[in-house]
Amino acid sequence: MTSAFDVLGIGNAIVDVIARADDAFLARHTLAKGSMTLVDEARAEALYGAMGPGIEVSGGSCGNTMAGVASFGGKGAYIGKVRNDQLGQVFGHDLRSIGVSFDTAAATSGPSTARCLILVTPDAQRTMNTYLGACTGLGPDDIDPKVVAAAQVTYVEGYLWDEPEAKKAVLKAFDTAHAAGRLVSITLSDSFCVDRYRDEFRALVRDKIDILFGNEAEIKSLYQVDSFDEALEATRKEAKIAALTRSEKGSVVIKGSETYAVPAAPVARVVDTTGAGDLYASGFLYGFTRGKPLAECARLGGIAAAEIICHVGARPETPLKGLV
Amino acid sequence: MTSAFDVLGIGNAIVDVIARADDAFLARHTLAKGSMTLVDEARAEALYGAMGPGIEVSGGSCGNTMAGVASFGGKGAYIGKVRNDQLGQVFGHDLRSIGVSFDTAAATSGPSTARCLILVTPDAQRTMNTYLGACTGLGPDDIDPKVVAAAQVTYVEGYLWDEPEAKKAVLKAFDTAHAAGRLVSITLSDSFCVDRYRDEFRALVRDKIDILFGNEAEIKSLYQVDSFDEALEATRKEAKIAALTRSEKGSVVIKGSETYAVPAAPVARVVDTTGAGDLYASGFLYGFTRGKPLAECARLGGIAAAEIICHVGARPETPLKGLV
Repeated sequence: MTSAFDVLGIGNAIVDVIARADDAFLARHTLAKGSMTLVDEARAEALYGAMGPGIEVSGGSCGNTMAGVASFGGKGAYIGKVRNDQLGQVFGHDLRSIGVSFDTAAATSGPSTARCLILVTPDAQRTMNTYLGACTGLGPDDIDPKVVAAAQVTYVEGYLWDEPEAKKAVLKAFDTAHAAGRLVSITLSDSFCVDRYRDEFRALVRDKIDILFGNEAEIKSLYQVDSFDEALEATRKEAKIAALTRSEKGSVVIKGSETYAVPAAPVARVVDTTGAGDLYASGFLYGFTRGKPLAECARLGGIAAAEIICHVGARPETPLKGLV
Repeated sequence: MTSAFDVLGIGNAIVDVIARADDAFLARHTLAKGSMTLVDEARAEALYGAMGPGIEVSGGSCGNTMAGVASFGGKGAYIGKVRNDQLGQVFGHDLRSIGVSFDTAAATSGPSTARCLILVTPDAQRTMNTYLGACTGLGPDDIDPKVVAAAQVTYVEGYLWDEPEAKKAVLKAFDTAHAAGRLVSITLSDSFCVDRYRDEFRALVRDKIDILFGNEAEIKSLYQVDSFDEALEATRKEAKIAALTRSEKGSVVIKGSETYAVPAAPVARVVDTTGAGDLYASGFLYGFTRGKPLAECARLGGIAAAEIICHVGARPETPLKGLV
């Protein structure tokens, strides 16, 4: 079966506003380090007013993944909702200019394009505060069945569960993909997100998901266990394929009784961990859709994650194709 | 005389859109490497559409200088015109959040906030394409005489000569400053800019300017001579104080018969030269307004320039105060 796209990503279309902050700033604003918190517009304005100078870079977990797929040389498409404002134009440009197909109609009224206020502390951890804005307008009508059917894998963010219409859009896409004989994949996104939707996510993993992505905290939260090994065995019973990341310990891929533990790619100095998981997924999915063995998919994921944590921002600065 | 501000900057309020490009891209779009070209909205859109993914960072030559002054610990104010749009909010936030006073009313109609499309080639040179947008609305009414009178030095960009009303604003500020017993300063900005306004700039240097900034290409263009030494002697005859930058050769400061040649600060690897001159001016003016000797002012300028060329973007990433 030929495919116009290797991967179709569906996600929250967000522009990141990245600023350095110290631990005292996080404490003063009661921000939980390393997490993603949804904020309303008033809270976003207040936090922005208190933050230092920032840089604006297109982001969004799944958008970052699609940028990674394109950077490897893969063919990608993206579905996500921006408004027709300046940051929306930036988001669209930054995907299209690297060859990712992005045709979701921008909202012409309502909230502005989503922003994620990212505070990077001296330990290179990122703490994210997301104002979803126009993302809340994503719904089933934005899913073009032809695009879904044309992609080998449809990959989505768990974050989309925070908006009921976006969840419906994902479920429509999953059903369309499976009806066309395609695969579907999800990232658990964030351990707090898993807390919010644990039962739904577990049912999804059992019933629909072909490739599951998550990090150690997320998968432990999903199965409510204390150790990674317990989480691994719980996942093995329910997931078809799971790629689980463990920061500097690398990643572990399981498929039935098969297990592939792959070390992390070496990194000279970690500057900003934003996007590590997103880029891991890009390498894995690029390898997978090119028919590579699972261990090689994990290795490609590790290469992409290593590139992204060496600099500020969650989109690749060095063509990933050249790092393979 | 006490001063609320060390430096008041007046400039084009611009958000930079920075992308990597190769020499073939410059050739294909007939862009002169290293220069600043004004573009209209249609050309800006076309170039942006052809460019790769970018990052958005507040910029504008004088805005960068004021960010540098603040990063040294100096007290700054800024006058420049944005629109009340998303990029205008970004520009304002990035100055105010570092303590620079910025009260110019944003335009509520008309063109959008200015953007500068900056292409950084593998040799770390930057080629700039500026869409002035809302900057064209800057005029004499935006000059608050109380702010001018409260600043030790009023510093402006030569670039402002591209807009007749902005030029009038600058001349009003200069007269106000001198009437209050304050000093005025200008950067020549760009050799093409000097070409456009050579006679006016020479008259300004003779009649009004207390501190002149320029690089080697600009000062040679101003006096239409072939060597830096000839330019230096021509400048000495007309300028009160001049600080002339020579990239890796450091800078030369002259005042009457005095000459101070100061070597460049060491740099491990030049990544992006955008803002080198802007930050040199910030260090020099910070030192000058703190009563430092001219050679020390030049040394501070060199430190700030060295910081800015080690990374992408023209605003300091490391507090300059800590580098002195």
